[in-house]
Amino acid sequence: MLAEFSVVPLGKGESVGHYVAECIRIVQGSGLDYRLNPMGTVLEGGYDDVMGVIRQCHMAMVSMCPRVITTVKIDDRVGAAGMMESKVRSVEEKVGTVLKR
Amino acid sequence: MLAEFSVVPLGKGESVGHYVAECIRIVQGSGLDYRLNPMGTVLEGGYDDVMGVIRQCHMAMVSMCPRVITTVKIDDRVGAAGMMESKVRSVEEKVGTVLKR
Amino acid sequence: MLAEFSVVPLGKGESVGHYVAECIRIVQGSGLDYRLNPMGTVLEGGYDDVMGVIRQCHMAMVSMCPRVITTVKIDDRVGAAGMMESKVRSVEEKVGTVLKR
Amino acid sequence: MLAEFSVVPLGKGESVGHYVAECIRIVQGSGLDYRLNPMGTVLEGGYDDVMGVIRQCHMAMVSMCPRVITTVKIDDRVGAAGMMESKVRSVEEKVGTVLKR
Repeated sequence: MLAEFSVVPLGKGESVGHYVAECIRIVQGSGLDYRLNPMGTVLEGGYDDVMGVIRQCHMAMVSMCPRVITTVKIDDRVGAAGMMESKVRSVEEKVGTVLKR
Repeated sequence: MLAEFSVVPLGKGESVGHYVAECIRIVQGSGLDYRLNPMGTVLEGGYDDVMGVIRQCHMAMVSMCPRVITTVKIDDRVGAAGMMESKVRSVEEKVGTVLKR
Repeated sequence: MLAEFSVVPLGKGESVGHYVAECIRIVQGSGLDYRLNPMGTVLEGGYDDVMGVIRQCHMAMVSMCPRVITTVKIDDRVGAAGMMESKVRSVEEKVGTVLKR
Repeated sequence: MLAEFSVVPLGKGESVGHYVAECIRIVQGSGLDYRLNPMGTVLEGGYDDVMGVIRQCHMAMVSMCPRVITTVKIDDRVGAAGMMESKVRSVEEKVGTVLKR
């Protein structure tokens, strides 16, 4: 399955890149396939693996910040694998051009 | 912490109330405090309890539907409890009237 | 259609109830039907009316805060009206009990 | 500002790439900078330009589908421009490596 998530700290000012970087290090350490975009991080893997990484990121943030808003959106398609690439490629084929990622 | 979630089945037509009802039965069985609103369900409890209930709902849906979109938004404030009522009441006090829930 | 939204200010500390109250005043002034829950506000109305109120709330926040995260989730069902009550009631009928809102 | 959005049709089966492609054509026609990722599309521009494109996508979908779920997340930072690239680059600098996008 795919899951996009973001972890936003409140009470730590408006610049939160330091905290996002901490999450990305956890994501990289997990070995799961990921893509970073300007609004969140997409992970691919089994439910428990993916949600385990998001839990680690959330807990790391909670240990540093008084309040944390974490959002997760899961797309779980039975029998589907390799959705990280195939979803974008499928849209590219339908549109008929390479798209900006 | 608080978490609002919704579980949307794809490939099962446009009327999905039957599936939402299945999730609500799981929520009721969990013993966690909850509120149902027209766009989702809010749970209150510890991270693992809340996310465990959402996992159960997601898995129940996956067993019935070819594709499931689950969204979760967590608001985790260190040291806060009873946020289910206090967040709305705090806004009511600031606005100075009882609000529609 | 229904839309749930929330407006979160960054760079203004962890207590943001003051800003939420400002949004609720705008919502009340709009005359649209609404419900406040612990994680957001649900509006019902036509696309442009609903999105116009959310725009007003977002702009009010931007005028007070250096950074604003606004989330919106729309459920637009062709030919449906009165979804604010009917969606929850439909789930209650299927579950067979009155649910906490 | 940045906004990530996705438009999900209900009642049209589990394969919705055809509808996503229709939205991407609208995005490309708008001239706004965009990035497609496996879970949504990120736009950059002024509030009304960005929300105008999302409105067009939503309306195109509503004209084809009995029910549409549209989600939008806005990150609006006063005085910020070029966030599409700078947010990811800033995380890369903090992590110290090039990241998968």
